[in-house]
Amino acid sequence: MRATVFHAPFDVRIEQLSDAALQEPTDALVRITHAAICGSDLWPYRGLEPFQAGWRLGHEWMGMVEDVGSMVSTIKRGDRVIAPFAFSDGTCEFCHKGLYTNCLHGGVWGQTHDGGQAEAIRAPFADATLVVVPPSVEGDEALLKAILPLTDVMGTGHYAALLAGVHAGGTVAIVGDGAVGLCGVLAARRLGAERIILLGHQESRLSLGRRFGATDLITSRGEQAEREVVELTGGGAESVMECVGTKESMETAIAIARPGGSIGYVGVPHGEQLNLERLFFGHIALRGGGAPVRAYLPELLADVLAGRLDPSPVLDLTVDLDGVPSGYAAMDQRTALKVMVRL
Amino acid sequence: MRATVFHAPFDVRIEQLSDAALQEPTDALVRITHAAICGSDLWPYRGLEPFQAGWRLGHEWMGMVEDVGSMVSTIKRGDRVIAPFAFSDGTCEFCHKGLYTNCLHGGVWGQTHDGGQAEAIRAPFADATLVVVPPSVEGDEALLKAILPLTDVMGTGHYAALLAGVHAGGTVAIVGDGAVGLCGVLAARRLGAERIILLGHQESRLSLGRRFGATDLITSRGEQAEREVVELTGGGAESVMECVGTKESMETAIAIARPGGSIGYVGVPHGEQLNLERLFFGHIALRGGGAPVRAYLPELLADVLAGRLDPSPVLDLTVDLDGVPSGYAAMDQRTALKVMVRL
Repeated sequence: MRATVFHAPFDVRIEQLSDAALQEPTDALVRITHAAICGSDLWPYRGLEPFQAGWRLGHEWMGMVEDVGSMVSTIKRGDRVIAPFAFSDGTCEFCHKGLYTNCLHGGVWGQTHDGGQAEAIRAPFADATLVVVPPSVEGDEALLKAILPLTDVMGTGHYAALLAGVHAGGTVAIVGDGAVGLCGVLAARRLGAERIILLGHQESRLSLGRRFGATDLITSRGEQAEREVVELTGGGAESVMECVGTKESMETAIAIARPGGSIGYVGVPHGEQLNLERLFFGHIALRGGGAPVRAYLPELLADVLAGRLDPSPVLDLTVDLDGVPSGYAAMDQRTALKVMVRL
Repeated sequence: MRATVFHAPFDVRIEQLSDAALQEPTDALVRITHAAICGSDLWPYRGLEPFQAGWRLGHEWMGMVEDVGSMVSTIKRGDRVIAPFAFSDGTCEFCHKGLYTNCLHGGVWGQTHDGGQAEAIRAPFADATLVVVPPSVEGDEALLKAILPLTDVMGTGHYAALLAGVHAGGTVAIVGDGAVGLCGVLAARRLGAERIILLGHQESRLSLGRRFGATDLITSRGEQAEREVVELTGGGAESVMECVGTKESMETAIAIARPGGSIGYVGVPHGEQLNLERLFFGHIALRGGGAPVRAYLPELLADVLAGRLDPSPVLDLTVDLDGVPSGYAAMDQRTALKVMVRL
């Protein structure tokens, strides 16, 4: 089969690999129909975090089940399934707590596991990990595109909103106008936030944020942006969602949180050092992590199927498998917000 | 009146100052009967945080009301009152949320306000700040000594336990065997924690911790201590209370928290830089702050009066007002755990 392989920073290639195949009785073998490139894929792409040549790429995908192992009971050949970005066994302490991304036997697709930017994938713990999408979606390309972001960015935005304590009638500030931040706007609106302040710098993304439900846009940077949010909210937002993962974005999140408020951060930290003093003296709760997207897939999928939720506009460029390298380049150069791979 | 004045590191003196007096109609004038020296008083004492010569000292105190302003309605001359370490107006947004230490018009006793290590004190916002202690306690020195820690350390330990999510049947690790950590043991036991792991280095404090309800004592340091707690708990404690306020103690707290767990930190940070990665990948919630002790005074006082709670053993040295300088020295040299000032 053909799959995306990482060679070196700025060098990903489509290569012929041995076919994905069942290995464990709990596996499913899935032919991938849709995948996406994630902002977090750009970290190794840019050489900004450790990587190994030969890694497989892609943790956002859905497809059609081709075969299942003998112990798989809820998924069958011919089902369309969607995967969260991490697989999990569904039986360990952390899965029972809904913390699927801390599963004792789980992992993220790609790297040394099969990746999702490929023709097919072996999916471990298929019953626990995969969610069946009803056959009514087949042929509806717009609907399929709306479902795909539930693999990661929409679930991650939702998780950030939950961790930030977003609630009906509340005020939330969202740091970052990338796909996660924009999905965070959708999530905050869905949870009933009344005032949704989006901080970002790119006009097209911000206008999408406005379409998604942002009530206020902050385009300045650093301390100026912080002052504007604090002024707009009369002292800071009770909920802050940090959706970037840099030291600067976290410092902004801390600076614009209201005393007694909560920050939900889903941008993956990369060794930044954080000063605790404002968090302490402001009694600001800090909660983050890799979103346990599996927990939210059923409810978010139901909303997409019912037409109440549509994150598909974050996917502004579509490529085929051969176009994946150019898709990485487009996201790196910010000519695309997020790339869908349609196989 | 005589009061404690800060001159320079390791130099605090009892001096004659102009008498405390009512200034606002919401003030009370209180003759102090009991005060205490706090571990946080040692930061300026040791020259480890900014200070100004002339600052007044003492934020833990109780006493008898000598006079009240015209607008004070719930407190009257002759009442015994206990104060939380911070005063608050009771009417602002943050007071309404129970975040009294973020009161828009509040402050901590001492420094440029009257201090509690003194013969008398002017207490602003008396109705909102002070809590009346029933006259039945008069003459019962042991009971009065058990009430005094509610001004700060007992309420702070309780707050750390709440922020750490301590609950009936749960497991908690407490970093620090100072007065706050030891009161944290009492708080955790009071909230029903089944396993209470106390980390510290001083034998007499640890044995007091055992008396207070600690089920396990960890006396090693650094990574060795962390390994022991992780082993003891099979992967970390779901609740961790950080009761020191140094970079090392916070790093220990992070290292021993179970994935999905919570850290409540009440040690005042002093510019330490914190790495977020384990917090993020472990989905560990971080919540801290200066405890809004006022919120907990009524329930903790009820428990002390009923004989269900007795933090008095943390006060292991008693001095009179003239003995305050020697009390600071004793705490600095760790020959005393915590000093009571009996006027």
